[in-house]
Amino acid sequence: MTGVDVPDIVIGRLPIYLRALTHLLEKGQEFTSSQELGRILGIGSAQIRKDLSHFGEFGKQGTGYEISYLREQISKILHVDKDWPVALVGFGDLGQAIAHYGGFANKGFHIKTIFEADAAKIGQAANGTIIQDVKDMSRVIAKQNIKMAVIAVPASVAQDVANKLIAAGVRAILSYAPITLNVPDDVRMQYIDPVLHLQRMTYYLA
Amino acid sequence: MTGVDVPDIVIGRLPIYLRALTHLLEKGQEFTSSQELGRILGIGSAQIRKDLSHFGEFGKQGTGYEISYLREQISKILHVDKDWPVALVGFGDLGQAIAHYGGFANKGFHIKTIFEADAAKIGQAANGTIIQDVKDMSRVIAKQNIKMAVIAVPASVAQDVANKLIAAGVRAILSYAPITLNVPDDVRMQYIDPVLHLQRMTYYLA
Repeated sequence: MTGVDVPDIVIGRLPIYLRALTHLLEKGQEFTSSQELGRILGIGSAQIRKDLSHFGEFGKQGTGYEISYLREQISKILHVDKDWPVALVGFGDLGQAIAHYGGFANKGFHIKTIFEADAAKIGQAANGTIIQDVKDMSRVIAKQNIKMAVIAVPASVAQDVANKLIAAGVRAILSYAPITLNVPDDVRMQYIDPVLHLQRMTYYLA
Repeated sequence: MTGVDVPDIVIGRLPIYLRALTHLLEKGQEFTSSQELGRILGIGSAQIRKDLSHFGEFGKQGTGYEISYLREQISKILHVDKDWPVALVGFGDLGQAIAHYGGFANKGFHIKTIFEADAAKIGQAANGTIIQDVKDMSRVIAKQNIKMAVIAVPASVAQDVANKLIAAGVRAILSYAPITLNVPDDVRMQYIDPVLHLQRMTYYLA
Protein backbone atom coordinates (compact mmCIF):
# COMPACT_ATOMS: atom_id res chain seq x y z
CA MET A 1 0.00 0.00 0.00
CA THR A 2 1.40 3.39 -1.02
CA GLY A 3 -0.04 6.63 0.28
CA VAL A 4 2.21 7.52 3.22
CA ASP A 5 2.42 11.19 2.31
CA VAL A 6 -1.03 11.62 0.80
CA PRO A 7 -2.47 15.09 1.60
CA ASP A 8 -5.11 15.03 4.32
CA ILE A 9 -7.59 16.73 1.96
CA VAL A 10 -7.37 13.67 -0.32
CA ILE A 11 -7.92 11.33 2.64
CA GLY A 12 -10.95 13.47 3.50
CA ARG A 13 -12.51 12.78 0.08
CA LEU A 14 -12.07 8.99 0.21
CA PRO A 15 -15.01 8.47 2.63
CA ILE A 16 -17.20 10.50 0.23
CA TYR A 17 -16.17 8.23 -2.65
CA LEU A 18 -16.83 5.22 -0.45
CA ARG A 19 -20.32 6.46 0.40
CA ALA A 20 -21.17 7.09 -3.26
CA LEU A 21 -19.85 3.66 -4.30
CA THR A 22 -21.95 2.02 -1.60
CA HIS A 23 -25.07 3.80 -2.88
CA LEU A 24 -24.38 2.69 -6.47
CA LEU A 25 -23.76 -0.89 -5.33
CA GLU A 26 -27.01 -0.90 -3.33
CA LYS A 27 -28.81 0.24 -6.48
CA GLY A 28 -27.43 -2.86 -8.20
CA GLN A 29 -24.82 -1.14 -10.38
CA GLU A 30 -21.56 -3.01 -11.12
CA PHE A 31 -19.31 -0.48 -12.84
CA THR A 32 -18.79 3.25 -12.64
CA SER A 33 -16.42 5.91 -13.97
CA SER A 34 -14.68 8.98 -12.59
CA GLN A 35 -17.09 10.98 -14.77
CA GLU A 36 -20.16 9.43 -13.17
CA LEU A 37 -18.75 9.74 -9.64
CA GLY A 38 -17.85 13.36 -10.41
CA ARG A 39 -21.40 14.11 -11.55
CA ILE A 40 -22.90 12.51 -8.43
CA LEU A 41 -20.51 14.25 -6.05
CA GLY A 42 -19.98 17.60 -7.77
CA ILE A 43 -16.22 16.93 -7.94
CA GLY A 44 -14.15 17.06 -11.14
CA SER A 45 -13.44 13.64 -12.68
CA ALA A 46 -9.73 14.53 -13.02
CA GLN A 47 -9.61 15.23 -9.29
CA ILE A 48 -11.13 11.84 -8.52
CA ARG A 49 -8.65 10.03 -10.79
CA LYS A 50 -5.75 11.95 -9.24
CA ASP A 51 -6.93 11.22 -5.70
CA LEU A 52 -7.21 7.49 -6.40
CA SER A 53 -3.86 7.38 -8.24
CA HIS A 54 -2.11 8.01 -4.91
CA PHE A 55 -3.01 4.45 -3.97
CA GLY A 56 -2.72 2.48 -7.18
CA GLU A 57 -4.49 1.66 -10.45
CA PHE A 58 -8.15 0.86 -9.85
CA GLY A 59 -9.82 1.54 -13.21
CA LYS A 60 -9.63 -0.08 -16.62
CA GLN A 61 -9.74 1.64 -20.00
CA GLY A 62 -13.25 1.17 -21.38
CA THR A 63 -14.95 -0.48 -18.41
CA GLY A 64 -14.01 2.06 -15.71
CA TYR A 65 -14.08 1.03 -12.05
CA GLU A 66 -15.58 -2.20 -10.78
CA ILE A 67 -17.60 -0.77 -7.89
CA SER A 68 -17.31 -3.61 -5.38
CA TYR A 69 -13.54 -3.90 -5.93
CA LEU A 70 -12.90 -0.14 -5.63
CA ARG A 71 -15.10 0.02 -2.56
CA GLU A 72 -13.15 -2.83 -0.94
CA GLN A 73 -9.82 -1.17 -1.75
CA ILE A 74 -10.85 2.22 -0.36
CA SER A 75 -12.19 0.48 2.76
CA LYS A 76 -8.79 -1.13 3.24
CA ILE A 77 -6.92 2.14 2.64
CA LEU A 78 -9.07 3.88 5.27
CA HIS A 79 -8.85 0.89 7.65
CA VAL A 80 -12.63 0.68 7.76
CA ASP A 81 -12.61 -2.96 6.63
CA LYS A 82 -12.49 -3.78 10.36
CA ASP A 83 -14.62 -2.83 13.36
CA TRP A 84 -13.70 0.09 15.59
CA PRO A 85 -14.85 0.43 19.20
CA VAL A 86 -15.77 4.03 19.99
CA ALA A 87 -16.29 5.79 23.33
CA LEU A 88 -19.05 8.41 23.58
CA VAL A 89 -18.64 11.14 26.19
CA GLY A 90 -21.80 13.06 27.05
CA PHE A 91 -25.37 11.75 27.14
CA GLY A 92 -27.44 14.93 26.82
CA ASP A 93 -29.84 15.51 23.87
CA LEU A 94 -27.01 15.28 21.36
CA GLY A 95 -25.25 12.32 23.00
CA GLN A 96 -28.54 10.44 23.05
CA ALA A 97 -29.15 11.14 19.36
CA ILE A 98 -25.62 9.91 18.60
CA ALA A 99 -26.09 6.76 20.71
CA HIS A 100 -29.39 5.97 18.97
CA TYR A 101 -28.12 6.74 15.45
CA GLY A 102 -28.17 3.58 13.38
CA GLY A 103 -25.59 4.80 10.89
CA PHE A 104 -22.44 4.09 12.91
CA ALA A 105 -22.64 0.37 13.63
CA ASN A 106 -23.33 -0.65 10.02
CA LYS A 107 -20.14 1.22 9.05
CA GLY A 108 -18.08 -0.62 11.66
CA PHE A 109 -18.11 2.04 14.37
CA HIS A 110 -19.47 0.55 17.58
CA ILE A 111 -20.25 2.78 20.54
CA LYS A 112 -18.91 0.39 23.17
CA THR A 113 -18.99 2.66 26.17
CA ILE A 114 -20.81 5.87 27.15
CA PHE A 115 -19.68 8.31 29.84
CA GLU A 116 -21.75 11.00 31.53
CA ALA A 117 -21.34 13.33 34.52
CA ASP A 118 -25.05 13.51 35.47
CA ALA A 119 -25.60 11.02 38.33
CA ALA A 120 -29.24 10.56 37.27
CA LYS A 121 -28.12 9.03 33.96
CA ILE A 122 -25.22 6.89 35.20
CA GLY A 123 -26.22 3.22 35.38
CA GLN A 124 -28.96 3.54 32.74
CA ALA A 125 -28.85 1.22 29.74
CA ALA A 126 -28.35 2.74 26.29
CA ASN A 127 -27.27 1.27 22.97
CA GLY A 128 -26.64 -2.12 24.60
CA THR A 129 -24.27 -0.70 27.19
CA ILE A 130 -24.51 0.83 30.66
CA ILE A 131 -23.81 4.54 31.01
CA GLN A 132 -20.72 4.98 33.15
CA ASP A 133 -19.47 7.72 35.42
CA VAL A 134 -17.16 10.08 33.55
CA LYS A 135 -14.86 9.84 36.57
CA ASP A 136 -14.10 6.24 35.55
CA MET A 137 -13.42 7.22 31.93
CA SER A 138 -9.61 7.12 31.96
CA ARG A 139 -9.48 3.71 33.61
CA VAL A 140 -12.19 2.12 31.43
CA ILE A 141 -10.81 3.42 28.14
CA ALA A 142 -7.26 2.37 28.93
CA LYS A 143 -8.49 -1.08 29.99
CA GLN A 144 -10.65 -1.56 26.89
CA ASN A 145 -7.87 -0.18 24.64
CA ILE A 146 -10.27 2.20 22.87
CA LYS A 147 -8.59 4.49 20.32
CA MET A 148 -11.57 6.55 19.06
CA ALA A 149 -13.95 8.82 20.93
CA VAL A 150 -16.89 11.10 20.21
CA ILE A 151 -17.23 14.16 22.46
CA ALA A 152 -20.77 15.52 23.00
CA VAL A 153 -20.23 17.69 26.08
CA PRO A 154 -20.51 21.48 26.57
CA ALA A 155 -17.63 23.60 25.22
CA SER A 156 -16.61 24.56 28.77
CA VAL A 157 -15.52 20.99 29.65
CA ALA A 158 -14.52 19.69 26.22
CA GLN A 159 -10.78 20.41 26.57
CA ASP A 160 -10.63 18.64 29.92
CA VAL A 161 -12.47 15.62 28.50
CA ALA A 162 -10.13 15.54 25.48
CA ASN A 163 -7.05 15.70 27.73
CA LYS A 164 -8.27 12.73 29.74
CA LEU A 165 -9.21 10.71 26.66
CA ILE A 166 -5.78 11.30 25.14
CA ALA A 167 -3.99 10.43 28.37
CA ALA A 168 -5.97 7.16 28.41
CA GLY A 169 -4.78 6.27 24.91
CA VAL A 170 -7.41 7.72 22.53
CA ARG A 171 -5.82 8.78 19.23
CA ALA A 172 -8.81 10.05 17.19
CA ILE A 173 -11.55 12.35 18.46
CA LEU A 174 -14.70 13.63 16.82
CA SER A 175 -15.92 16.61 18.83
CA TYR A 176 -19.37 18.18 18.68
CA ALA A 177 -18.38 20.85 21.22
CA PRO A 178 -18.27 24.28 19.56
CA ILE A 179 -14.63 25.02 20.43
CA THR A 180 -11.25 24.29 18.85
CA LEU A 181 -9.36 21.86 21.07
CA ASN A 182 -5.66 21.76 21.71
CA VAL A 183 -4.31 18.24 21.10
CA PRO A 184 -0.86 16.70 20.46
CA ASP A 185 0.27 16.25 16.85
CA ASP A 186 -0.19 12.48 16.96
CA VAL A 187 -3.91 12.79 17.82
CA ARG A 188 -6.40 13.24 14.96
CA MET A 189 -9.21 15.74 15.58
CA GLN A 190 -12.42 16.23 13.64
CA TYR A 191 -15.16 18.69 14.50
CA ILE A 192 -18.87 18.96 13.86
CA ASP A 193 -20.32 22.40 14.58
CA PRO A 194 -23.53 23.03 12.62
CA VAL A 195 -23.33 26.78 13.28
CA LEU A 196 -20.10 26.98 11.25
CA HIS A 197 -21.87 25.32 8.31
CA LEU A 198 -24.81 27.74 8.50
CA GLN A 199 -22.49 30.75 8.81
CA ARG A 200 -20.51 29.84 5.72
CA MET A 201 -23.72 29.70 3.70
CA THR A 202 -25.23 33.03 4.75
CA TYR A 203 -22.24 34.74 3.07
CA TYR A 204 -23.82 33.78 -0.24
CA LEU A 205 -27.36 34.83 0.69
CA ALA A 206 -28.34 38.42 -0.13
CA MET B 1 -17.31 45.40 0.85
CA THR B 2 -14.87 43.56 -1.41
CA GLY B 3 -14.71 39.79 -1.56
CA VAL B 4 -16.93 38.90 -4.54
CA ASP B 5 -14.55 36.24 -5.84
CA VAL B 6 -13.15 34.99 -2.54
CA PRO B 7 -12.52 31.22 -2.65
CA ASP B 8 -15.14 29.20 -0.80
CA ILE B 9 -12.42 27.61 1.35
CA VAL B 10 -11.60 31.08 2.73
CA ILE B 11 -15.27 31.74 3.45
CA GLY B 12 -15.33 28.40 5.25
CA ARG B 13 -12.58 29.55 7.63
CA LEU B 14 -14.23 32.86 8.57
CA PRO B 15 -16.79 31.20 10.93
CA ILE B 16 -13.87 29.47 12.69
CA TYR B 17 -12.13 32.83 13.18
CA LEU B 18 -15.41 34.29 14.40
CA ARG B 19 -15.84 31.51 16.94
CA ALA B 20 -12.29 31.94 18.26
CA LEU B 21 -12.69 35.73 18.50
CA THR B 22 -15.94 35.26 20.44
CA HIS B 23 -14.18 32.95 22.90
CA LEU B 24 -11.34 35.44 23.44
CA LEU B 25 -13.83 38.29 23.93
CA GLU B 26 -15.80 36.23 26.45
CA LYS B 27 -12.56 35.67 28.34
CA GLY B 28 -12.21 39.47 28.56
CA GLN B 29 -9.39 39.86 26.04
CA GLU B 30 -9.33 43.04 23.91
CA PHE B 31 -6.61 42.47 21.32
CA THR B 32 -5.24 39.48 19.47
CA SER B 33 -2.80 38.71 16.63
CA SER B 34 -2.72 36.37 13.66
CA GLN B 35 -0.01 34.48 15.58
CA GLU B 36 -2.27 33.94 18.60
CA LEU B 37 -5.28 32.99 16.45
CA GLY B 38 -3.03 30.61 14.52
CA ARG B 39 -1.87 28.91 17.72
CA ILE B 40 -5.45 28.52 18.98
CA LEU B 41 -6.78 27.19 15.69
CA GLY B 42 -3.81 25.23 14.36
CA ILE B 43 -3.75 27.40 11.21
CA GLY B 44 -0.68 29.29 9.94
CA SER B 45 -0.66 33.00 10.87
CA ALA B 46 0.22 33.93 7.25
CA GLN B 47 -2.89 32.04 6.10
CA ILE B 48 -5.06 33.98 8.53
CA ARG B 49 -3.62 37.34 7.41
CA LYS B 50 -4.10 36.37 3.75
CA ASP B 51 -7.69 35.23 4.35
CA LEU B 52 -8.60 38.49 6.08
CA SER B 53 -6.80 40.62 3.46
CA HIS B 54 -9.50 39.62 0.95
CA PHE B 55 -11.87 41.90 2.85
CA GLY B 56 -9.72 44.83 3.98
CA GLU B 57 -7.18 45.94 6.55
CA PHE B 58 -8.22 44.89 10.04
CA GLY B 59 -4.99 44.84 12.04
CA LYS B 60 -2.55 47.51 13.17
CA GLN B 61 1.24 47.22 13.37
CA GLY B 62 2.14 46.66 17.01
CA THR B 63 -1.32 46.26 18.52
CA GLY B 64 -2.69 43.56 16.17
CA TYR B 65 -6.44 43.08 15.85
CA GLU B 66 -9.01 44.70 18.10
CA ILE B 67 -11.14 41.65 18.81
CA SER B 68 -14.60 43.26 19.03
CA TYR B 69 -14.02 45.24 15.82
CA LEU B 70 -12.72 42.27 13.84
CA ARG B 71 -15.57 40.12 15.13
CA GLU B 72 -18.11 42.71 14.04
CA GLN B 73 -16.52 43.00 10.60
CA ILE B 74 -16.44 39.23 10.01
CA SER B 75 -20.07 39.02 11.19
CA LYS B 76 -21.01 41.61 8.57
CA ILE B 77 -19.02 39.86 5.84
CA LEU B 78 -20.79 36.58 6.61
CA HIS B 79 -24.20 38.30 6.98
CA VAL B 80 -24.55 36.87 10.48
CA ASP B 81 -25.02 40.32 12.01
CA LYS B 82 -28.74 39.73 11.42
CA ASP B 83 -31.19 36.97 12.37
CA TRP B 84 -31.99 34.12 10.01
CA PRO B 85 -35.16 32.06 10.18
CA VAL B 86 -34.45 28.38 9.55
CA ALA B 87 -36.77 25.49 8.69
CA LEU B 88 -36.06 22.08 10.20
CA VAL B 89 -37.27 19.02 8.30
CA GLY B 90 -37.43 15.79 10.29
CA PHE B 91 -38.20 15.38 13.99
CA GLY B 92 -36.71 11.99 14.79
CA ASP B 93 -33.92 11.57 17.39
CA LEU B 94 -31.59 13.83 15.44
CA GLY B 95 -34.21 16.44 14.55
CA GLN B 96 -35.20 16.64 18.20
CA ALA B 97 -31.58 17.13 19.30
CA ILE B 98 -31.23 19.89 16.68
CA ALA B 99 -34.46 21.57 17.79
CA HIS B 100 -33.35 21.50 21.44
CA TYR B 101 -29.78 22.63 20.75
CA GLY B 102 -29.22 26.02 22.37
CA GLY B 103 -26.30 26.95 20.13
CA PHE B 104 -28.30 28.12 17.09
CA ALA B 105 -30.49 30.90 18.44
CA ASN B 106 -27.67 32.76 20.20
CA LYS B 107 -25.86 32.85 16.84
CA GLY B 108 -28.90 34.32 15.07
CA PHE B 109 -30.27 31.10 13.57
CA HIS B 110 -33.86 30.63 14.67
CA ILE B 111 -35.69 27.39 13.96
CA LYS B 112 -38.99 28.98 13.05
CA THR B 113 -40.77 26.00 11.66
CA ILE B 114 -40.43 22.21 11.95
CA PHE B 115 -41.83 19.67 9.49
CA GLU B 116 -42.36 15.96 10.03
CA ALA B 117 -44.08 13.10 8.20
CA ASP B 118 -45.06 11.08 11.32
CA ALA B 119 -48.72 11.91 12.11
CA ALA B 120 -48.10 11.17 15.82
CA LYS B 121 -45.67 14.11 16.04
CA ILE B 122 -47.56 16.65 13.90
CA GLY B 123 -49.27 19.24 16.09
CA GLN B 124 -46.87 18.79 19.03
CA ALA B 125 -45.09 21.85 20.39
CA ALA B 126 -41.29 22.02 20.12
CA ASN B 127 -38.84 24.88 20.37
CA GLY B 128 -41.68 27.40 20.67
CA THR B 129 -43.34 26.26 17.46
CA ILE B 130 -45.89 23.65 16.39
CA ILE B 131 -44.63 20.69 14.35
CA GLN B 132 -46.25 20.83 10.94
CA ASP B 133 -47.13 18.25 8.33
CA VAL B 134 -44.33 17.90 5.77
CA LYS B 135 -47.09 17.97 3.14
CA ASP B 136 -47.61 21.66 3.96
CA MET B 137 -43.88 22.42 3.74
CA SER B 138 -43.75 24.08 0.31
CA ARG B 139 -46.66 26.40 1.07
CA VAL B 140 -45.46 27.39 4.56
CA ILE B 141 -41.85 28.04 3.53
CA ALA B 142 -42.83 30.12 0.52
CA LYS B 143 -45.28 32.11 2.65
CA GLN B 144 -42.75 32.73 5.44
CA ASN B 145 -40.01 33.52 2.90
CA ILE B 146 -37.53 31.16 4.60
CA LYS B 147 -34.18 30.85 2.78
CA MET B 148 -32.35 28.35 5.03
CA ALA B 149 -33.23 24.79 5.98
CA VAL B 150 -31.78 21.91 7.97
CA ILE B 151 -32.58 18.41 6.72
CA ALA B 152 -32.68 15.64 9.32
CA VAL B 153 -34.55 12.92 7.42
CA PRO B 154 -33.44 9.45 6.21
CA ALA B 155 -31.21 9.35 3.12
CA SER B 156 -33.99 7.71 1.11
CA VAL B 157 -36.21 10.82 1.20
CA ALA B 158 -33.57 13.57 1.47
CA GLN B 159 -33.42 14.38 -2.26
CA ASP B 160 -37.20 14.72 -2.47
CA VAL B 161 -37.24 17.00 0.59
CA ALA B 162 -34.41 19.11 -0.87
CA ASN B 163 -36.23 19.45 -4.21
CA LYS B 164 -39.36 20.71 -2.46
CA LEU B 165 -37.43 23.12 -0.23
CA ILE B 166 -35.64 24.59 -3.24
CA ALA B 167 -38.86 24.90 -5.24
CA ALA B 168 -40.34 26.81 -2.28
CA GLY B 169 -37.45 29.30 -2.29
CA VAL B 170 -34.83 27.85 0.08
CA ARG B 171 -31.31 28.79 -1.03
CA ALA B 172 -29.09 27.22 1.65
CA ILE B 173 -29.42 23.71 3.05
CA LEU B 174 -27.54 21.92 5.80
CA SER B 175 -28.20 18.20 5.41
CA TYR B 176 -27.57 15.51 8.02
CA ALA B 177 -28.74 12.78 5.62
CA PRO B 178 -25.79 10.56 4.63
CA ILE B 179 -26.11 11.12 0.88
CA THR B 180 -24.81 13.69 -1.59
CA LEU B 181 -27.75 15.72 -2.92
CA ASN B 182 -28.20 17.11 -6.39
CA VAL B 183 -29.03 20.82 -6.23
CA PRO B 184 -28.92 23.77 -8.66
CA ASP B 185 -25.76 25.92 -8.75
CA ASP B 186 -27.46 28.84 -7.00
CA VAL B 187 -28.28 26.73 -3.93
CA ARG B 188 -25.62 26.34 -1.22
CA MET B 189 -25.28 22.88 0.30
CA GLN B 190 -23.46 21.83 3.46
CA TYR B 191 -23.37 18.34 4.88
CA ILE B 192 -22.85 16.80 8.28
CA ASP B 193 -22.15 13.07 8.23
CA PRO B 194 -20.25 11.92 11.33
CA VAL B 195 -19.30 8.62 9.67
CA LEU B 196 -17.22 10.53 7.08
CA HIS B 197 -15.32 12.23 9.91
CA LEU B 198 -14.63 8.93 11.66
CA GLN B 199 -13.56 7.25 8.42
CA ARG B 200 -11.04 9.95 7.59
CA MET B 201 -9.40 9.47 11.00
CA THR B 202 -9.06 5.67 10.95
CA TYR B 203 -6.69 6.08 7.98
CA TYR B 204 -4.13 7.42 10.46
CA LEU B 205 -4.71 4.76 13.11
CA ALA B 206 -2.52 1.65 12.92
